[in-house]
Amino acid sequence: MKFIIQRDRLVQSVQDVMKAVTSRTTIPILTGIKITTTDEGVTLTGSDSDISIESFIPKEEAGDEIVEIKQTGSIVLQAKFFSEIVKKLPTDSVEIEVLNHLQTVIRSGKSEFNLIGLDAEEYPHLPQIEENNKFHIATDLLKAMIRQTHFAVSTSETRPILTGVNWRIENGELTCIATDSHRLALRKAKVEMETSDSYNVVIPGKSLNELSKIIDDSNEQIDIVITENQILFKAKHLLFFSRLLEGNYPDTSRLIPNESKTDVTVNTKEFLHAIDRASLLAREGRNNVVKLSTIEGGIIEISSNTPEIGKVVEEIQSESIEGEDLKISFSAKYMMDALKALEGTDIRVSFTGAMRPFLIRPLHDETILQLILPVRTY
Amino acid sequence: MKFIIQRDRLVQSVQDVMKAVTSRTTIPILTGIKITTTDEGVTLTGSDSDISIESFIPKEEAGDEIVEIKQTGSIVLQAKFFSEIVKKLPTDSVEIEVLNHLQTVIRSGKSEFNLIGLDAEEYPHLPQIEENNKFHIATDLLKAMIRQTHFAVSTSETRPILTGVNWRIENGELTCIATDSHRLALRKAKVEMETSDSYNVVIPGKSLNELSKIIDDSNEQIDIVITENQILFKAKHLLFFSRLLEGNYPDTSRLIPNESKTDVTVNTKEFLHAIDRASLLAREGRNNVVKLSTIEGGIIEISSNTPEIGKVVEEIQSESIEGEDLKISFSAKYMMDALKALEGTDIRVSFTGAMRPFLIRPLHDETILQLILPVRTY
Repeated sequence: MKFIIQRDRLVQSVQDVMKAVTSRTTIPILTGIKITTTDEGVTLTGSDSDISIESFIPKEEAGDEIVEIKQTGSIVLQAKFFSEIVKKLPTDSVEIEVLNHLQTVIRSGKSEFNLIGLDAEEYPHLPQIEENNKFHIATDLLKAMIRQTHFAVSTSETRPILTGVNWRIENGELTCIATDSHRLALRKAKVEMETSDSYNVVIPGKSLNELSKIIDDSNEQIDIVITENQILFKAKHLLFFSRLLEGNYPDTSRLIPNESKTDVTVNTKEFLHAIDRASLLAREGRNNVVKLSTIEGGIIEISSNTPEIGKVVEEIQSESIEGEDLKISFSAKYMMDALKALEGTDIRVSFTGAMRPFLIRPLHDETILQLILPVRTY
Repeated sequence: MKFIIQRDRLVQSVQDVMKAVTSRTTIPILTGIKITTTDEGVTLTGSDSDISIESFIPKEEAGDEIVEIKQTGSIVLQAKFFSEIVKKLPTDSVEIEVLNHLQTVIRSGKSEFNLIGLDAEEYPHLPQIEENNKFHIATDLLKAMIRQTHFAVSTSETRPILTGVNWRIENGELTCIATDSHRLALRKAKVEMETSDSYNVVIPGKSLNELSKIIDDSNEQIDIVITENQILFKAKHLLFFSRLLEGNYPDTSRLIPNESKTDVTVNTKEFLHAIDRASLLAREGRNNVVKLSTIEGGIIEISSNTPEIGKVVEEIQSESIEGEDLKISFSAKYMMDALKALEGTDIRVSFTGAMRPFLIRPLHDETILQLILPVRTY
């Protein structure tokens, strides 16, 4: 194998596939990046066996030569060293050549690295996925949907299925749901499908998080293919594979209340900042809990009391309070996570009493909701 | 105690004194910030008993009212909470009032914090320093001198005196020296003194590091007072006290060679980047060592070889190589630290054989030098 490549393009691709590489693997060859050259260009692959990422660098783009292929072939190079090396090379162009016995030379200007590679034949094959049933979605919308749900997955392995985000596709609509059983995040959007298939899968939260780091914030379409145990995201020159979690995701629809007893409409930022301050002294204590009380004149009081340290009282003028008076306690962290995930200047919080889960939604937007279970303190 | 203060000024002062506060202290009251109001303004104090910082906020500045003192007094508030609170308060103005029993109320807009304070009478007194013999230096020059020497102090407590920077003042010249016995950094500069006193003290590296974080990069003068066991830095509205290290600093002058056998002049950045790359594969191995060899045509070769991983060869065209041919090995980290501390586009490295310490200096600048001991590999 021998080729000459534009350094910046190589650096970008290496950074992308590095997102799948971990040093904590039981399969030594997965600490490497696989490099394959064909007559069309260079393909880099990284994998931790849960996530696999493939980045393709074409020979030419818009008439501009990016890679000059001298000899096709493949090699696996230690990801940790290879990624550091390409970042620091002195010139805009890099030559990579595999000599005898997996010895690989990386040349750039007056700099010459000689790395001992691994045999690419031993690198695991990526899942073969038939692309009959794919659907697509704009990349920036996908990123938003991930951001608005994935934070609510469980970090505990007691119920592994809850460490993933549930994706349901029915009638051309994608619903993403995450819950750690104390709170729930839900986001819906239309997707473009060629068939009327429906899906119900669970994608590891970590996979979605890594995916959202490497896809652009553009409105270009990304293709998605779901199989029995894999999901594949196809962007331009980029393939992102993730395994799916096995098991049935709980039916969360019963959790979401249909009616409410108290509805509060409030400015999102004011509410967020007041909760942030009210929780400052409670962070050390149990659960980071704050209290919310409706008081006269449309005022909401947020407070916390940590006996050894002190107490905080915040007042916010709401847009409106409808229904019964209320005192309720909840995790400030969950509330802040939920508020940060919502868009829009005003939100509506719908309570059904101090012991029941409550909903946080933007005004006039039915595609997203956040649900939080209160904490008993009264 | 009761006063109203501009929030931004309070935040800045709290951040400054926080540099001295640590949660790892055996004296509980030192986890707090002392706040004292007089008719002149507000003074904040933080201390870990090694370093103490006092920041003063005057009532008025340039005709602008910064503090409105309603009642003088003092209190100590938990630094961790107080610093977080002031950063997040909602309005530009903050009212702080001590009620009965050390209860302290912090009000800003519709936000009200009630903190349980500590008795300011129990806060340790800062060292009393007579300011007869002070000298001064421009703040930006002081920062540069700290940056150029303090990285070379020892991080090991085997010889505690080497964890400090040796400051010698003689004939109106300050010399700062740091060494961990494998390398040495030295920087000299003129200071303005009222007397012809001379000093030889050792300042903890950590103190200088914290000091350089809170002083501005301006050319305003900073006053320095040295006593038997303390040093005091006085900037505008800021006092920074540090204890001095006890014991005699070794005489380092014998270490610095007066003559050389090989002198290499090279572009600083090119040299730095080549060493950085050459050490990429050696970082895991023992000591992060690279080899330097002079070769024909004024070329310097930097190389490293880590058998299991691979090898690197870098060539640099020097400005000049004078004297004997040379092969020498040294720590890439020490060399990079030294090169980053130097100013100027070109440097001269002066060797006296492969086993002797060598010097790195900017061209045409006698006020700074870096010395490194080689590593035996040949």
